[in-house]
Amino acid sequence: MHIICPQKSLLNSINIVQKSVSTKTTLPILRGIYIEAASNQLKIVGTDLEIGIENLIEAEILDEGATVIDARLFSDIIRKLPDADIDIKLIDNNQVNIKCLNAEFSIVCHNPDDFPDLPEISEDNFYKIPQELFRNMIKQTVFATSQDESRPILTGVLLEIDQNSLNMVALDGYRLALRKGKIQSDISNKAVIPARTLSEVARILEVDNEKPIEICLTENHALFITGKTKLISRLLEGEFINYKQILPKEYKSRVKINTRNLYNSIERASLLAREGKNNLVKLIINDDKMIITSNSELGKVHEEIVILLEGDDIEIAFNSKYFMDALKVFDDEEIYLDFTTNISPGIMKPVDNENYTYLVLPVRVSSN
Amino acid sequence: MHIICPQKSLLNSINIVQKSVSTKTTLPILRGIYIEAASNQLKIVGTDLEIGIENLIEAEILDEGATVIDARLFSDIIRKLPDADIDIKLIDNNQVNIKCLNAEFSIVCHNPDDFPDLPEISEDNFYKIPQELFRNMIKQTVFATSQDESRPILTGVLLEIDQNSLNMVALDGYRLALRKGKIQSDISNKAVIPARTLSEVARILEVDNEKPIEICLTENHALFITGKTKLISRLLEGEFINYKQILPKEYKSRVKINTRNLYNSIERASLLAREGKNNLVKLIINDDKMIITSNSELGKVHEEIVILLEGDDIEIAFNSKYFMDALKVFDDEEIYLDFTTNISPGIMKPVDNENYTYLVLPVRVSSN
Repeated sequence: MHIICPQKSLLNSINIVQKSVSTKTTLPILRGIYIEAASNQLKIVGTDLEIGIENLIEAEILDEGATVIDARLFSDIIRKLPDADIDIKLIDNNQVNIKCLNAEFSIVCHNPDDFPDLPEISEDNFYKIPQELFRNMIKQTVFATSQDESRPILTGVLLEIDQNSLNMVALDGYRLALRKGKIQSDISNKAVIPARTLSEVARILEVDNEKPIEICLTENHALFITGKTKLISRLLEGEFINYKQILPKEYKSRVKINTRNLYNSIERASLLAREGKNNLVKLIINDDKMIITSNSELGKVHEEIVILLEGDDIEIAFNSKYFMDALKVFDDEEIYLDFTTNISPGIMKPVDNENYTYLVLPVRVSSN
Repeated sequence: MHIICPQKSLLNSINIVQKSVSTKTTLPILRGIYIEAASNQLKIVGTDLEIGIENLIEAEILDEGATVIDARLFSDIIRKLPDADIDIKLIDNNQVNIKCLNAEFSIVCHNPDDFPDLPEISEDNFYKIPQELFRNMIKQTVFATSQDESRPILTGVLLEIDQNSLNMVALDGYRLALRKGKIQSDISNKAVIPARTLSEVARILEVDNEKPIEICLTENHALFITGKTKLISRLLEGEFINYKQILPKEYKSRVKINTRNLYNSIERASLLAREGKNNLVKLIINDDKMIITSNSELGKVHEEIVILLEGDDIEIAFNSKYFMDALKVFDDEEIYLDFTTNISPGIMKPVDNENYTYLVLPVRVSSN
């Protein structure tokens, strides 16, 4: 193998695949980045066996071939080299020479045959979805997945495709996030994708790219294609919870409120709430105002926000973290908060559309 | 106590003093910020008994008095409040109310009498030094202080004042940094200031402020005044090493080299050197070029830089960290490297002036 390519494009490619490289593995080969020179392009691959990322870049191929280089060392070297052409040449199958202007590295490398193949996925039956929409859908759901590995299915996000609509759902036993979007599809399908995969997919999406991301689901894997990058991930096994029966159909109190004001007030209230274990903040909804209170041994806080209330007055308490996590990802200036009783879930949704629903369980407090 | 002041200026003041607030102390009062309302200004103070910082801000004083508020909570609250006037009022001596628009906090506070007084320093006999120059002198010396608490005197920087000149010196047993500057002074004086103090002083210096910083030294303390901020620090006790006898008077090889190129090459070489414990890089100086090499079990690197050599060829090895630390703080485009033998110290200094000298001990390596 012998190739020449610009420092910038090689570094960009390494940055894309490096997030899938394992740092904790006992298999040394998985700490490496696979590079393969074929016809007129260079393929760069990383994988930790859960996620694999493959990126293609243009390069001058003087000699075809492949090798595997330690990911950390390779990325550090390429990052520190000047913005010029880099010459990479395989010598004797266990040493790779990297030259750039007056710098020359000789690095021990691995046998490319030992590098695991990414799963083969027949690239038909694609769903297409605009990149910005998909990034937004990930952002609005992925934070609500469970961190608890004892119920693995809840560490992922359900993708549910039905008649040109895509629902993404995450829940962790305390809150639920449901985001609806449009997709090009003839058939129904569903899969549970690990949260980490979706975070990586969001990272490789290009902000201004008008070309949609393409998604392909098989029984065990999901494939995401955007531009010159492919990401393949294992799916989570098992049945996802029937989330539709969790969502309340009606409410007794509906509050219309400014999203930013609510976030700021709850954030300040949580400065005192955080001293307690449950981050408790109390909402007292009364006519045209909402009072938010919180207290701990350090003191107490009292916040007032003007609201529009439809229905009954109510007092209800929540873990402030669950409120703030969701308020951070609303793009809407105003939202509805819907409540039924102070022991049943609260619902947040945008005032102007139906595409997002966030449910959070209240905390029971004594009535004084 | 009852005051009103704008959120921005209060937050700025808290940010200045907060760095001197102790986080690890067993004395709860030291985790607090002292605020005192007197005539037409507000005094904000923090101290950990080693360093004390005092800042004055303009405020509307409705009622004079003082209190002490937990620093972390206070700064978090003020940071999260909107950009509006903040009303702070002491109630019953153990509770302080903080109001801003529709937010109101009641916070438990401490008795201001329990807060330690900062040392009294008679503010005569000042040295004045331009802020930018002093920041630069700190930056070029403080990194070379020792981290090893077993020789406390080396954890500080020597300030040596003599006939309008100020020398600042730091050394840790492996390297020495000496920076010379001009100061307004009639008398000679010296003191060893803790490295942490100087880092904090550099932080409170204002980039564009034309007014010099004022420094006052007493037997046990140093006082730094800049604008509305005073910083008082304990001095380190003991005799500083007689550094002048460490500096070599002559050299056998003088290399003129581009600072940035040398930094970049040594940084790349150190990517492999870091695998070894001593970060070893070897310089082979020969006629019009310097070759930098390094190797480890992961591979090796070879860098070439064009130089101007006056005197003998030489091969010498160093800990790359000690080279890079200094190359980072040179403002000069070109520097001299002076060597005598491969077991005697190397010297770096700017080509165009005499104000900075950095000395570093070589590492002995076998001759092959």
